[in-house]
Amino acid sequence: MITARQNDWIKLTVRLLSSSKARREEGLFAAEGVRLCMDALKSGAEIRLLLFTARGQEKYPEEIRQLRQKAFRAEEVDGALFEKICDTQSPQGILCLLTLCPDTIGAVQKGKRYLGLENVQDPSNVGTILRTAEALGMDGVFLSGDCCDVWSPKVVRGSMGAVFRLPFADCGNMTDAVRRWTQAGIPVFASSPGGEALVGETDFSGGGVMLIGNEGNGLRRETIEAASLSLKIPMNGRAESLNAAAAAAILMYEMCT
Amino acid sequence: MITARQNDWIKLTVRLLSSSKARREEGLFAAEGVRLCMDALKSGAEIRLLLFTARGQEKYPEEIRQLRQKAFRAEEVDGALFEKICDTQSPQGILCLLTLCPDTIGAVQKGKRYLGLENVQDPSNVGTILRTAEALGMDGVFLSGDCCDVWSPKVVRGSMGAVFRLPFADCGNMTDAVRRWTQAGIPVFASSPGGEALVGETDFSGGGVMLIGNEGNGLRRETIEAASLSLKIPMNGRAESLNAAAAAAILMYEMCT
Repeated sequence: MITARQNDWIKLTVRLLSSSKARREEGLFAAEGVRLCMDALKSGAEIRLLLFTARGQEKYPEEIRQLRQKAFRAEEVDGALFEKICDTQSPQGILCLLTLCPDTIGAVQKGKRYLGLENVQDPSNVGTILRTAEALGMDGVFLSGDCCDVWSPKVVRGSMGAVFRLPFADCGNMTDAVRRWTQAGIPVFASSPGGEALVGETDFSGGGVMLIGNEGNGLRRETIEAASLSLKIPMNGRAESLNAAAAAAILMYEMCT
Repeated sequence: MITARQNDWIKLTVRLLSSSKARREEGLFAAEGVRLCMDALKSGAEIRLLLFTARGQEKYPEEIRQLRQKAFRAEEVDGALFEKICDTQSPQGILCLLTLCPDTIGAVQKGKRYLGLENVQDPSNVGTILRTAEALGMDGVFLSGDCCDVWSPKVVRGSMGAVFRLPFADCGNMTDAVRRWTQAGIPVFASSPGGEALVGETDFSGGGVMLIGNEGNGLRRETIEAASLSLKIPMNGRAESLNAAAAAAILMYEMCT
């Protein structure tokens, strides 16, 4: 049983929970809690390490049995140490380190529906957006290089496991990606309070990419200009704008129904 | 200048920031930051106390001048003490205590569009929902007695000031409120994954009340049964459900457009 914070697996886990640089360098991320770990298992994610506590073993014996079968390695961890390294309040005593796949979308396909996030910074927003994208039936999500890290614990948790099922890709600079897509004949829709068309009157039957911008500043001007069409949500009230996750929900809903 | 944590105004502020019971008992709530305080001022809220720091005075002299004109009382607070009592990371040195109005809706009117929240617990969700309700042009929001407190600092902040402009009321038990509304001929729509109609095919031209339920359990069965119609959002994906704020955004969008 691991009892020391200096243990290499513990040190690795702490780094993966706190640093996106560490996740990129190691090609791994952490999922904590029985539900997320089982989501990872069902989605066929590669489980490099399972950490569990005696209490986790007692409460979730069947889940831990299944996870152990697929994990490259499993280690029992002292309960107090486990609580210290987790970033949740009452951890369930199950944590997996998983291999991250930098691109599960591959080539963009005509007729499919994608979301593109440019410089979206808040992990709760990104988590909620991914959960919504999965629920409404989007085919994949592109994130610009300056978005918050999709493999951070807050995003993984907030997505309710959508990170394990939705295809993703880091598309680098969003303006450049939009130019590539439009040149390939993929419609790209830029959401913006100053949009030229109303989202409810737009034809989404040909699929395409729906772009959502930064919480404070929206999409970059160059990105809006590179898109096929800019869209707005009709706002009758006095508020300046919608929260990014609320706007994304409405835009994806219109695209998917 | 107030320098002691034991000062009565400071003790009152700390209680109002942390306890919904204190807010109810005192009939006051706190708004922190220059933007929220100016929102309060513009909306005509009664400013019982303005607390400001030397740094706030230096950065926002005009705003503090305007707030002082309307405030019953204004006190300068030591910067370090101010930072300690605020629940934000880098406070701007401006905080107001405001009189809360338990009901600014009054009688429900036919043809108007209202939101009803039953047992919605997460302050970030409630804040986002209020911001969305204002942006889309809803006429008011009813909260059941078991929702999280709308005057908590997280909700006030997350609403981006919507709490100062949107009419609100605590409607007590939501099932009873729904029965009163339907008996008065007000249409009441219950959102539920098992809803009988699709939200996109529903006629909202007569206005009414759109109900949103608890994050984990949704609306109570009795509340759904008391409503005029139950609605669902079509979900193509594998996710079990949408986040409450995302679902609310889609439902209010359909109601308002």
